Amino acid sequence: MSNPTAAMLVIGDEILSGRTRDANMYYLAGELAKHGVDLREVRVVSDDPEAIISAVTALSQGHDHVFTSGGIGPTHDDITADCIAQAFGMTIDVRDDARAILEAHYATTGTDLNAARLRMARIPEGATLIENPVSSAPGFTVKNVHVMAGVPSVFQAMVASVLATVVGGAPLLSQTLRVDRGEGEIASTLAALAEKHPDLSIGCYPFQVNGAFGANVVVRGIDGGEVDAAVTALARDLDL
Amino acid sequence: MSNPTAAMLVIGDEILSGRTRDANMYYLAGELAKHGVDLREVRVVSDDPEAIISAVTALSQGHDHVFTSGGIGPTHDDITADCIAQAFGMTIDVRDDARAILEAHYATTGTDLNAARLRMARIPEGATLIENPVSSAPGFTVKNVHVMAGVPSVFQAMVASVLATVVGGAPLLSQTLRVDRGEGEIASTLAALAEKHPDLSIGCYPFQVNGAFGANVVVRGIDGGEVDAAVTALARDLDL
Repeated sequence: MSNPTAAMLVIGDEILSGRTRDANMYYLAGELAKHGVDLREVRVVSDDPEAIISAVTALSQGHDHVFTSGGIGPTHDDITADCIAQAFGMTIDVRDDARAILEAHYATTGTDLNAARLRMARIPEGATLIENPVSSAPGFTVKNVHVMAGVPSVFQAMVASVLATVVGGAPLLSQTLRVDRGEGEIASTLAALAEKHPDLSIGCYPFQVNGAFGANVVVRGIDGGEVDAAVTALARDLDL
Repeated sequence: MSNPTAAMLVIGDEILSGRTRDANMYYLAGELAKHGVDLREVRVVSDDPEAIISAVTALSQGHDHVFTSGGIGPTHDDITADCIAQAFGMTIDVRDDARAILEAHYATTGTDLNAARLRMARIPEGATLIENPVSSAPGFTVKNVHVMAGVPSVFQAMVASVLATVVGGAPLLSQTLRVDRGEGEIASTLAALAEKHPDLSIGCYPFQVNGAFGANVVVRGIDGGEVDAAVTALARDLDL
């Protein structure tokens, strides 16, 4: 049985304008690999309703899970929740359960739950809330789409909440063999190995250190025995 | 007149499996902003022909320029050039001009131009070569798609080669105002400012330092005078 598939949608002008270096993609990719969920595609779009709606619709149809990051705060540019509702034809308004969470949080900090902050309780009808142990304002899951914050510490906490509910498959295992030769030197050996092991992914990532060429060969698969065997055979074929 | 638009396509299993942290997206986003090209969307796909062909077709139709990174080396998993040719219905084979570049390069290093390395001279008919001053194997431009290497030093050199040929618009200017208040506190002021300046993008990026909340407000636009005026008005409205 193959693993469930996933896509990620990163929402935010700050990534596309080069101001902010995205950190959530790398984090999510690592967590999904450990959890046995195959991340197949990532898209980054701006804070534009049409772009968000069209991306989330396409990704939701093509994958078992979609993870979004960004655009669920209190300011005018936080439009993700409304776009998700629109994408699925759902109504959206301030919801009592989300409002109660914010009220409890702001009561302890002595902060006013003003109109802007209350926007964070706008949740589509029928959505399941995602716990936010960092700053309380919840994310939510609609159908197969998990809507999470862009701030990395909050995103990471929400990913943990969601993955506890997602049935994963076999984790992707990988082994790396460092070869101190240019990749052009070992390419035919790698191609033969890849042909012999169609269930493994065999990647070759070149590097250059002090003017000398080398490559890291990464063998990935869910059958640890086959990964082992392939790496052993490769080392032998390359006289390592 | 509005700026030309662009999309980026990152190709590689190593990003989606969480092994490698992509560095090229952040670099390209910054260069395009300086050059007056609006980066509207980024997609990351795996080393899968169907995924590459479908993404490059969609992005090429929707934007003035598409920049790809990854998958043009000598190994079996380097399938980008063939996929691009297939996406545009072009033939592809080892091309004499690209082969001459590789021959000259490998002659100076005393390295054999074997079958694997010769794969890097496979270039679609009619494509324009992109210079690679780092390791010689060229990228290429087909229609509005610029096909470049994934290794960051090579990618960056190729971006410089391509941008020298791309007519940009007005560079995106930005100013940041740090506000030591939670974003829920300043959200209504920002919303009013955004409504008053529909040509500016006004983003709010929260942070937390030593338990205190703050936010960086970033005002972006191509009219420097309007960016100035908006930031000045914002500081006044927030009593800064």
